Parts: sequence; C-alpha cells; structure tokens
Amino acid sequence: MTAKTPDSTRRSERSRRAILDAALELVGESGYQRLTIEAIAARAGVGKQTIYRWWPSKAAVLFEAVVPEGVDPATVELPDTGDIEADLKATLRATVDELGNPRLDAPTRALTAETQNDPQLGAALAERVLEPQLQAYVRRLQAAQRAGQIADGVDLRTALELLVGPLFHRWLLRTRPLTHEYADTVATLVVRGLAPR
Amino acid sequence: MTAKTPDSTRRSERSRRAILDAALELVGESGYQRLTIEAIAARAGVGKQTIYRWWPSKAAVLFEAVVPEGVDPATVELPDTGDIEADLKATLRATVDELGNPRLDAPTRALTAETQNDPQLGAALAERVLEPQLQAYVRRLQAAQRAGQIADGVDLRTALELLVGPLFHRWLLRTRPLTHEYADTVATLVVRGLAPR
Repeated sequence: MTAKTPDSTRRSERSRRAILDAALELVGESGYQRLTIEAIAARAGVGKQTIYRWWPSKAAVLFEAVVPEGVDPATVELPDTGDIEADLKATLRATVDELGNPRLDAPTRALTAETQNDPQLGAALAERVLEPQLQAYVRRLQAAQRAGQIADGVDLRTALELLVGPLFHRWLLRTRPLTHEYADTVATLVVRGLAPR
Repeated sequence: MTAKTPDSTRRSERSRRAILDAALELVGESGYQRLTIEAIAARAGVGKQTIYRWWPSKAAVLFEAVVPEGVDPATVELPDTGDIEADLKATLRATVDELGNPRLDAPTRALTAETQNDPQLGAALAERVLEPQLQAYVRRLQAAQRAGQIADGVDLRTALELLVGPLFHRWLLRTRPLTHEYADTVATLVVRGLAPR
C-alpha cells in the first residue's frame, strides 16, 4: 500500500459522495429494480470499477448513502425532559419527518424490502441502524419506569414496539398518511396503556 | 371460446394447483430472487406457456398462491364474545400462528417486499387482503366502543394499528420471536390504553 496524497484523498472523497448521491437520485427516479452499478457510475461520472472497488453491490452503495457514516450508535438518545409523553411525541414526530423525507423515502423502502432477500443486509441494518434506535427507546422508557410514569413489570421491549410498530406499518404499507397528529395520538394512547393503574 | 370438457377443466385445475404449490416450495427453498417462471414450470411439470397464459409475472403466481381465492373480504370478522381483550388476544394469537406458518413465511415476506417495487401488487394486496382485515378490526373496536370498553373519541384506525403494527414490525424486521405471550401482552397494554378513564 502506498500513502495517498492529499489531492487523491480529496478526489476519492468527491467520487464517493458523487456515487452515493447518484444512487439516491436514481432510486428516487426509477426505483430499486432498475438501479444498476452502470447507471450509478454514469450519473456520478466515474468508472464502474471505482464503485466495485469500494462496494460489493448496489444494496451496499445504497446502505452507505442512507446510513450516515461515523454515527456512534451509543450516542443515539431520546430527549428526556422528565415528561415521557412529551418526549415520545417529539421523538415520533421526528420519525414522521424522517420517513417523509422525499430524498430518503425510496432508498429506505428499497433497503427495507431488500432485507427480505438478503439476510446479511438485514443484519447490517439491524446492527447499525435499528437496534441502536430501539435501545435508545428502552433507556428512555426505563427512566420513565423509575420515575413512576410507567407501571412496574411492563416489558419495555414490547412497549417501544407499540410506539414504533404503528408508524412502521402505516409507512411501509402506505395505508394512511403519516402526520404529526398521528404521532401524537400513538404516543398518548400508548403512554396511557403503560401508566401505573 | 369453446366450452371446456369436464376432463380438461379437471386437468387445468390440477395444473393450476401444481403451479401454485411449486411457486410456494421454490420460494421457501431458494428465495424470491432466484424464483423464475421456468423453475416453476419445471417443478410443476407444465410448460412455461401454461403459466404465462394464466399469470403475467412470478409475483402474480405467488399472490394467488398466498391469497386464498374466493374469500369474500366482507366475511372476515373478529370474534365477538363481548370481552374485547380476550377477543383481541385470540385474534393476535391467530396472526402469530399465520405468520409462523413455514410454508407461507417466505412467500408472504417476498410479496410484502415486492410491494415496495410494484405499486400494482401493493394495491392488489391492500384491496384483497390488508384492508378487509383492518376493517374487521374497526368493526370489532366499534362494538367495544359502543359497549363502553373503549373511550369515546378514540380514533379506531389508530387503535387497530397499535395492535397489528407491533406484530408486523417484529415479524418483518425479525427483531424478536413472535409468540402467543407477545400477542397477549400487546392486547393487554393496548386495551388499557384505549379504556375509558
């Protein structure tokens, strides 16, 4: 291995970013099935081999485009103002906003669908994206349980799925629009269900 | 068009069933992406043209294999013993059993994933499978609301998504095993959240 010069590192980073942007754009325009490494290379203005040097598949390119690099999963935290209902509303509203981001909608759907065919991709998504988020819910709900806002003995893993499951269902199956009002209603009803009796 | 003889109708029905069975088996064995009309035809012992005469795509074959023909959506009903919590537990336990059916697991996942690439398939699944089921929840929850077991003013569409969303999330994302105990916990917590205060 030879050390890269600052110039070639900068060129590499520019190519990498162009490739990721091209992948996001193309999925949004024509869908995941028509996405090819050739098309990404053409749009990004690089050679196919440049892409294959860094990523083994179109799913891997898209994964990196959607999942921010260098995010430390341990730093994902829900807000904690002491008011569990308000904090969950804020968190679910932010999720509604993320899922509604038109630039990320098609790629995120494509990746989620692709996990059904590609267990390795599913494991990578679970490890780097899904579980860190779900563990952040667990920590926030534990604090609420200690504060007496959630009944003792409630399984917090189930509790968090009551919050994120409905949004995921509505988003992936496109049954109804995802709105802040919906996020609020889910949070209110679930917090009621979790409260000490 | 010429009338079919009883013999040719019987032969057609036998071929149709063999094709649907072959599609289910092959998806379970090697996944949706390796599924081809050629492979289905070979396994079913029919010609490719026989399949193309009846279905436009492998997704369409799988759809018919998974979705029972001739089910009238209006006849889908949840049990109504008068006890909403018990009825929801029974319903969610039955869903856990269905999603755990190894013969249907891979094809149902494949179809769900495919809806992200194929809006027509998504619309067909919504119309013939998803919405009839969700409407049955709405009717049962309406009865519970009339009986005073659910608070007035609760949005029942959101309420049913609190029930089915968590199971869907856990199943599709394979985060944890789907069990009857889980179904019961979801039903109990949600019914608590919906109850008049």
